Amino acid sequence: MADRAKVILLVCDGLGDRPTSGGKTPLQAAATPNMDAVSEAGINGIMDVISPGIVPGSDTAHLSLFGYDPYDYYPGRGVFEALGADMKLHAGDVAFRANFATVDANMRIIDRRAGRKGSKELADVLDGIEIEGVRIYLKNTTEHRCAVVMRGDNLSNRISDVDTHEAGGIVAESKPLSDGEAENRTAHVVNEFVKRSYELLDRHPINEERRQRGELPANILLLRGAGSYRKVPSITERFRLHAACIAGASLYKGVAKYIGMSVMHVDGATGKADTNLNNKADAVLNALKSNDLVFVHVKATDSMGHDGNFEGKREMIARIDRELVARLKDMDAYMVITADHSTPVSIKRHSSDPVPIVMNGEGIRRDEVKRFDELSVASGGLCRIRGMDLLPILSDFTGYYIMYGT
Amino acid sequence: MADRAKVILLVCDGLGDRPTSGGKTPLQAAATPNMDAVSEAGINGIMDVISPGIVPGSDTAHLSLFGYDPYDYYPGRGVFEALGADMKLHAGDVAFRANFATVDANMRIIDRRAGRKGSKELADVLDGIEIEGVRIYLKNTTEHRCAVVMRGDNLSNRISDVDTHEAGGIVAESKPLSDGEAENRTAHVVNEFVKRSYELLDRHPINEERRQRGELPANILLLRGAGSYRKVPSITERFRLHAACIAGASLYKGVAKYIGMSVMHVDGATGKADTNLNNKADAVLNALKSNDLVFVHVKATDSMGHDGNFEGKREMIARIDRELVARLKDMDAYMVITADHSTPVSIKRHSSDPVPIVMNGEGIRRDEVKRFDELSVASGGLCRIRGMDLLPILSDFTGYYIMYGT
Repeated sequence: MADRAKVILLVCDGLGDRPTSGGKTPLQAAATPNMDAVSEAGINGIMDVISPGIVPGSDTAHLSLFGYDPYDYYPGRGVFEALGADMKLHAGDVAFRANFATVDANMRIIDRRAGRKGSKELADVLDGIEIEGVRIYLKNTTEHRCAVVMRGDNLSNRISDVDTHEAGGIVAESKPLSDGEAENRTAHVVNEFVKRSYELLDRHPINEERRQRGELPANILLLRGAGSYRKVPSITERFRLHAACIAGASLYKGVAKYIGMSVMHVDGATGKADTNLNNKADAVLNALKSNDLVFVHVKATDSMGHDGNFEGKREMIARIDRELVARLKDMDAYMVITADHSTPVSIKRHSSDPVPIVMNGEGIRRDEVKRFDELSVASGGLCRIRGMDLLPILSDFTGYYIMYGT
Repeated sequence: MADRAKVILLVCDGLGDRPTSGGKTPLQAAATPNMDAVSEAGINGIMDVISPGIVPGSDTAHLSLFGYDPYDYYPGRGVFEALGADMKLHAGDVAFRANFATVDANMRIIDRRAGRKGSKELADVLDGIEIEGVRIYLKNTTEHRCAVVMRGDNLSNRISDVDTHEAGGIVAESKPLSDGEAENRTAHVVNEFVKRSYELLDRHPINEERRQRGELPANILLLRGAGSYRKVPSITERFRLHAACIAGASLYKGVAKYIGMSVMHVDGATGKADTNLNNKADAVLNALKSNDLVFVHVKATDSMGHDGNFEGKREMIARIDRELVARLKDMDAYMVITADHSTPVSIKRHSSDPVPIVMNGEGIRRDEVKRFDELSVASGGLCRIRGMDLLPILSDFTGYYIMYGT
């Protein structure tokens, strides 16, 4: 593959927005001379990451951006969580996101997020438990969060969440979402496991110490986002390219692993506003040596959108421009800048507004667009494409094409 | 159908390109006052002939342009080759492309293209042979090329090619591509036929004469591109229009016949750079009298792309503009100019870059585009459509509409 062209795919999470402050989006308001230079040299457009009007989650959005139709390939969030936490998965495993919480003796939730410190020890208490032939593995990821893997015969991900997503309510029972033996059995094991977590954690010395310090005990584990693992054809098999992932947040690493990207470790890549973009830029340049496509993800633009923080989002965009795009845009590679979805600060959630996209590199049909923002790119030469189109288009540009017909 | 509108659909094969010489595509560099006039008066856009990132073959591309989804309707190339050569096909027949070649006694290929003269007589030697209940028909098309039809029970097109596409190798055995009785049987018959062709041709008087003249013998027939014929609903049934095809190269005539277009004979239409465009223009004007849609195809733009010949492609485009578009653009018909795919001179192969398209005629929403080229049209009123959209759009414009719902 030596002389084939390479690709840098920069995804600024939740980058797209709506006109807000002074009629501008954060991207329009931000100083982005480097992104603008890519737009001026390249071909621009807007992109429906899944399809018009469909609000993507971060996981389904990334599947789509990597050429995997989420309607065929989405395994449920828990799978990405477990893979992102470096847990091994076998076909048939059901995986979950989970968090330590505080409940009273009536199973009323006092705090959904308990035990931000010391969660690793609590996870060890539960790791490896067996319930009715199902072995349960646990790994603490960050703060109160864990990934959980259940391994055994006849399990299903079609069950409801235990986590009610709000304090004050009673811990929910997991229920089968369709009528089947595997669904009934899995919901039952999940409920037993949650009960067992309370029995093992409530009087555990770590929690007794917490009580003595006046803290709430982390005395239950709440599960959600059941996902069912199966092996899927890798991005290398499907698009004949080797790809690497550079991301801070574990979800994105999980999606990347699921489709066979190699995941690079980057010091200081936190998935937060304090993430070290210089180290990420170094990692991209390094990964480019042995990969055909390098996916680099920045999370904080999305978080600022969820927080409704216009200035924070604007500043984060400017920092991505200065610290990341400035160093990547003139490499000997196709440069693609886009987002996985919009997260407008005005509504503090994901939206289906299409995202801006620019592609630059050898042979690209340069258009008249001079600014990289949601409005300017819409008159560009790409017009309006879909997330699922991106990898096929890039594959052809980098020379990994297969002609259909003769 | 007297007062219904008509359509001229001009397809310049492989017309789309990438910026190359002085940052321009051949279409941008060419003098195209007539195409530009159509763009200025009409509605413009770009078109993914199959879908974004998919590199179309010429055959699948034309199916798509005629409103036939190639994923449903593509029968394999051999079918178009046989139909284009005016051979009759019955449902269940398997057809091939074939060429006379030179092999040594060890079946090593010396020349993939032998017997450019005298091939008709050689074809007659093989025509009508029967092998294990399969009757084999042969027709010489141009130079060393033939179309082959196999007729018999239980045949399949899921077999591999005999032609290795390169000299120096040993003649390949056809192998079944899936495990089935028909696949095994067809591959076996193909291999027997290839063997028989060597036995009948190697010592044939025509080849002895060739040897005496110091020429290589055309002593074997190599088969490829197996296609399986079935009758499909005609373009008349599907879009309620009568259509005619004006093309030099036989592949396009074959696609046209497959979907029920009538194929016009045009003197001097060669499918090459020397093709007589004046005669083609005459033929279009003549065919318009008794047809609703006239498809006119020019091949040489694609050939120039494959040759990496920027100047040749630019010149051919200018000639199409002068000799064909100038005479067709002011007829009382919708004028559509487009391509089946891009063949950039920089990469000398088909690519997935979208093709330019312009439509002009009564009631068209005229946009601001003034130049017919890959970049200018992208800001036009059609935005970005797909090949499969074209016939439905045209059908409605010409009045052959069916409302969906009430």
